[in-house]
Amino acid sequence: MVWSDGLLRMLDQRLLPMQEEWIELTTWQEIRDSIRDMAVRGAPAIGVAAAYGMALAAQKGEDMSAAAAEMREARPTAVNLMWAVDRIMSLSDLGYESVLSEAKAIEREDLAMNLEIGRHGAELIKPGSRIMTICNTGSLATAGHGTALGVIRTAYEQGKLDHVYSCETRPRMQGLRLTAWELLKDGIPFQSISDNMAASLMRDGKVDLVIAGADRIAANGDSANKIGTYMLAVCAVYHKIPFYIAAPSSTLDPNIPDGSHIPIEERAETEITEIDGVRVAPVGCKVFNPGFDVTPGDMIDGIITEAGVFRRPYSFQK
Amino acid sequence: MVWSDGLLRMLDQRLLPMQEEWIELTTWQEIRDSIRDMAVRGAPAIGVAAAYGMALAAQKGEDMSAAAAEMREARPTAVNLMWAVDRIMSLSDLGYESVLSEAKAIEREDLAMNLEIGRHGAELIKPGSRIMTICNTGSLATAGHGTALGVIRTAYEQGKLDHVYSCETRPRMQGLRLTAWELLKDGIPFQSISDNMAASLMRDGKVDLVIAGADRIAANGDSANKIGTYMLAVCAVYHKIPFYIAAPSSTLDPNIPDGSHIPIEERAETEITEIDGVRVAPVGCKVFNPGFDVTPGDMIDGIITEAGVFRRPYSFQK
Repeated sequence: MVWSDGLLRMLDQRLLPMQEEWIELTTWQEIRDSIRDMAVRGAPAIGVAAAYGMALAAQKGEDMSAAAAEMREARPTAVNLMWAVDRIMSLSDLGYESVLSEAKAIEREDLAMNLEIGRHGAELIKPGSRIMTICNTGSLATAGHGTALGVIRTAYEQGKLDHVYSCETRPRMQGLRLTAWELLKDGIPFQSISDNMAASLMRDGKVDLVIAGADRIAANGDSANKIGTYMLAVCAVYHKIPFYIAAPSSTLDPNIPDGSHIPIEERAETEITEIDGVRVAPVGCKVFNPGFDVTPGDMIDGIITEAGVFRRPYSFQK
Repeated sequence: MVWSDGLLRMLDQRLLPMQEEWIELTTWQEIRDSIRDMAVRGAPAIGVAAAYGMALAAQKGEDMSAAAAEMREARPTAVNLMWAVDRIMSLSDLGYESVLSEAKAIEREDLAMNLEIGRHGAELIKPGSRIMTICNTGSLATAGHGTALGVIRTAYEQGKLDHVYSCETRPRMQGLRLTAWELLKDGIPFQSISDNMAASLMRDGKVDLVIAGADRIAANGDSANKIGTYMLAVCAVYHKIPFYIAAPSSTLDPNIPDGSHIPIEERAETEITEIDGVRVAPVGCKVFNPGFDVTPGDMIDGIITEAGVFRRPYSFQK
């Protein structure tokens, strides 16, 4: 995502990895649509895009409250979207320059947080490590560097990384499509695997550490993340392999005591039954498609944030 | 697969589940091609098809040894194919009627074994059970009824089955394509899931029993099966859910003491990077694609065969 006066350029993530097409957005309505239609995804990245969208509204002297309301509805479950829009609205009376400056701050701060997450996380990683991860938690999902993938990037820069095993992350394949694309760009050595291969790689002694992102973390450390994360945690615990979560501290939600308070969204059946519009399952096939699972805090060896690494037992305070 | 004098009709499994197209084969060369090109798959089903192919060769007075050699090479790793061709060749001098009668016996015996596997397996299943399985082990892979899916069928017939969770089985999706198709045909209640959802269903108390097939079982019970089976075993053990293997006793290989002697075939990268010819992964993406994994015998609560249920510790004899 690149801002230049009055213009936001972003990679259309719907077309990745087969096409690298940059789209140019010049109105807040176009940015709202790009969020709703998932040209941009990943909670921190959505927040940054929305902030620049609000800057465009301010620049053109449009109704800020109306723009804010529509922006929030573009992805109603994205906490970072609400947070970014709120932050912009708190100074919308001050005009375009102030709003733009705040949007730039949101972007800059997210990148800085990810670099800190990477720095703290890399301290946990021994030279020659083979790391397994899931979903996309990289530059595409954030303002840059990434969270779990940010730790992998920093470890690679420090020469500590031997290999990455990237789980493809059914059903939407963010690992196979997006994480593989980012790792290729950076020249980081990796292989993509089907999610169901993770256990046998661990048993064969090929995985030193597992690291995943999080969408929401309860006071006791219970962490909601992309479906499949809990499967990796079970396999890691069984094989005595360290399992870490990496996320900005804004992901911590001390208002909920544990993961049972995190609603798990069930997503469209076609995410499983079709791939890129090609039908795979027989007509009439019912599926179960939860978007997330919750990994209990007591299975997580550490939660890596920009403020440092938290350790079990977790007890996050308001 | 349906034999009528001089003609073998079979469902083209490459087109399932979207098209149910029966192909009619009248020469041994056509049957060889159907095995090589995977119109028919599943070790027992391949054995039956090859036996009928040899009957066609005998009927037309062709060179049986040459036909046998080419048939064996159609799928050189399929143990059942070699076994079926050997069985036919042992009486090929006796002429068409004897050969055809042996082919029919191979088919009939396989079906009978599967019905016995189903009967023994169903004794382990309590009323109201919710069963998880992986890959396709049903009528399409055998002469009928199936092995692990045969147990599910028999339990359903006995009114003991509440629900099936069918793992889609990446990368080739035999669960989502073929098992879902068979379960729909029989009206058995089920949902297809991504493989990585299995763990959270178990944690939520929605799975009473896990059952899988096997391709080869060592003397100590170590069982090679479709990739992902070991992941299910780890998750089942972690959640204290019974884990069973169902396979004909011809799958037992007491000549190897344990699973370390089972070579694991690495398969084509395109099985992961493409789906139905549609590219999903970025160009240059490396993958790791083992076709099978090995579940240690001490994680398996029982091995269900036509001869009965074996229990830990396993010690199969020559």
